[in-house]
Amino acid sequence: MDLQRLYSANMKNMKRSAIRELLKLANKPGLISFAGGLPDPGVFPLEAISQITAEVLAQEGDTALQYGLTAGEPRLRRALAKWGAAQGLNLTEENVIVTTASQQGLELISKMFLDPGDIVIVELPSYLGGLNAFTSYRANLVSIPLDDEGMKVDLLSDKLKELQGQGKMPKFIYVVPDFQNPAGVTMSTERRRQLLDLCYQYDLPLVEDTPYRELRFEGQAPPDLLKMDDKGHVISLHTFSKILFPGMRLGWTIAPREIIDKLELAKQSMDLCTPSFTQALVRRYMERGLLEPQIERIIGVYRKKRDAMLGSLDAYMPKVPGIHWTRPKGGLFLWVTLPKGIDTQKMFAQAVDRDVAYVIGSAFCADGSGENSMRLNFSFPTEEEITEGIRRLAETVKENLA
Amino acid sequence: MDLQRLYSANMKNMKRSAIRELLKLANKPGLISFAGGLPDPGVFPLEAISQITAEVLAQEGDTALQYGLTAGEPRLRRALAKWGAAQGLNLTEENVIVTTASQQGLELISKMFLDPGDIVIVELPSYLGGLNAFTSYRANLVSIPLDDEGMKVDLLSDKLKELQGQGKMPKFIYVVPDFQNPAGVTMSTERRRQLLDLCYQYDLPLVEDTPYRELRFEGQAPPDLLKMDDKGHVISLHTFSKILFPGMRLGWTIAPREIIDKLELAKQSMDLCTPSFTQALVRRYMERGLLEPQIERIIGVYRKKRDAMLGSLDAYMPKVPGIHWTRPKGGLFLWVTLPKGIDTQKMFAQAVDRDVAYVIGSAFCADGSGENSMRLNFSFPTEEEITEGIRRLAETVKENLA
Repeated sequence: MDLQRLYSANMKNMKRSAIRELLKLANKPGLISFAGGLPDPGVFPLEAISQITAEVLAQEGDTALQYGLTAGEPRLRRALAKWGAAQGLNLTEENVIVTTASQQGLELISKMFLDPGDIVIVELPSYLGGLNAFTSYRANLVSIPLDDEGMKVDLLSDKLKELQGQGKMPKFIYVVPDFQNPAGVTMSTERRRQLLDLCYQYDLPLVEDTPYRELRFEGQAPPDLLKMDDKGHVISLHTFSKILFPGMRLGWTIAPREIIDKLELAKQSMDLCTPSFTQALVRRYMERGLLEPQIERIIGVYRKKRDAMLGSLDAYMPKVPGIHWTRPKGGLFLWVTLPKGIDTQKMFAQAVDRDVAYVIGSAFCADGSGENSMRLNFSFPTEEEITEGIRRLAETVKENLA
Repeated sequence: MDLQRLYSANMKNMKRSAIRELLKLANKPGLISFAGGLPDPGVFPLEAISQITAEVLAQEGDTALQYGLTAGEPRLRRALAKWGAAQGLNLTEENVIVTTASQQGLELISKMFLDPGDIVIVELPSYLGGLNAFTSYRANLVSIPLDDEGMKVDLLSDKLKELQGQGKMPKFIYVVPDFQNPAGVTMSTERRRQLLDLCYQYDLPLVEDTPYRELRFEGQAPPDLLKMDDKGHVISLHTFSKILFPGMRLGWTIAPREIIDKLELAKQSMDLCTPSFTQALVRRYMERGLLEPQIERIIGVYRKKRDAMLGSLDAYMPKVPGIHWTRPKGGLFLWVTLPKGIDTQKMFAQAVDRDVAYVIGSAFCADGSGENSMRLNFSFPTEEEITEGIRRLAETVKENLA
């Protein structure tokens, strides 16, 4: 069968990620990987989930194993609305749709808004799963650089003016405002305000993807974009993947009612509904008040790992101009920049030779830049592995400086 | 925010289903519904699942609650390949991708093949979830009528010749060959052979959606299209929703390796992976040999319900020309045709007044026909409800004949 003739233009635009090919190299015993984005399984609340599962099957098995509603189990939607309200958000369950983790939220938003060639504004660097979802609908990604306060909103302002002049307004702006993946930075309150004002000025939706927000190790959180928004422009993506576990693929999206209705419609052909079974489990877990202490536990573990990584970078990395890294106050990742001229893709094989791995920075850069940078994950490896892995990585960098 | 300006052409093409609006009417106490497509929760193996969940969390909780591979948990893929091989299929685990139930398979295939305006050949009537997935990518649906032996392949042959003449070849052909939803009919072996030959002649993929195949109450099954295909044209969609339960949203697609690779790529942005947790549960359930006896149990229950429905239709329906119904040898549904001039959509309110509901036939007909037909489900109501519900329905029909 001649398949090339049959594939859609969308399919032809999807590419196997270069990371995957690189990471195949990293699949060797003894290697310390900072490449993944996995939570630490040591914090998974196995016993509580085991007990709750037995209860769900005994008390509501008939509905938990049955088809559910496309927008989500009503009691979970209520629990999620209550959770949001406790954080100061103004919402009801009708502003919430349960998704098969927040990746599905990204796909739904892409399908809802994007025609081929449509522009999406993204951060530079940005979350790979977001970029992939947008390009799978053949969006044209326009990148705005980050600094330690998040997206450089002055550059965004210039870009929007330019695009308007060309009659090419974007469909939406996509940001990961809290402990950004991959950069680890958090958008300041002032930038958030300016970003929202630009969205109002140009009548644009703002997609806030915030899987790590609850995992703050220190300091005061700036307000959610969703909370600051009083005009209904923000679509806010959430997930249990980092604050509980990823293995049930449960997330939720908060948005104005009209947008939730459209997401529900698009979700219907996508998977009919998210599993009723796992929704019942997590709803009970929340109702029992177990989520808050679980998040505290995760914060305690990840803070120590973050400290181990920053401490090791300070201790082992060569002190030369051009080498720096972000100092995240939460989340799972930090971002290392090396002197110009060092190509982390070329360096990757050497790192793997020294039994350490990372993700190349260019993978997160929609404009193909970032060749002298890399993302490091600190949630999955142990503190000992972090120390030893950063030592190996520093050796690799020194070799490249020489 | 002016959302109409922002929605994609795909989104604008998606419509809220008329059925949903009708079924809101049916949400009243005492009403007997033949409208849904729900399995009987009385057959859900709650205790076995409860026990297996405890084992999974105790023995492999770290991986079961972690991210998994996009193509599915390797051990489940192997178990599914083994299950297929036991049914005579020639496959390995690399021909299998786990999906978030078979609805996701339909979405993935749509995204993989369909550009706006592309033609998909479907049955008349056909499965609504399939039609919705295809139209959500703005496919142009071309319907070929069914009879008691399945799709009328002679009409298909004429249509393909006509389309070829117009230079508008379809992207694929979509069939539900076994105990079709909604019609309840099964495609004969001869028709299957002819259908495959047409796919070879025109170099077209054949999408076989077969959620009910295992639920055969009597007689000999014709071979799977997948099994008959020796040229790699068939993409075969499967699900645990009807042979186990729908509440974990677990399905799988079998196809040539190249197609599985593309489905995996498209799935990555859709949900990264299907829940590891539920995959581990169902894999253990299969490995323990529990699925075969479970299917036998379901067959026993549904056969009695089918018998109750056919017996009641024979007993209560008016004996006038033009009234007939299919006599399915398995599955969950049968299809009733009323004399021309009776509009089941208009009749629906009267049926609900008599406390009985169905799905209007036109909902399943891509060409808008089917106004004098309806789909009845027999898996969910009890035998007593079936008898009483068919009595009520027959009264409603008599009222309309008068």
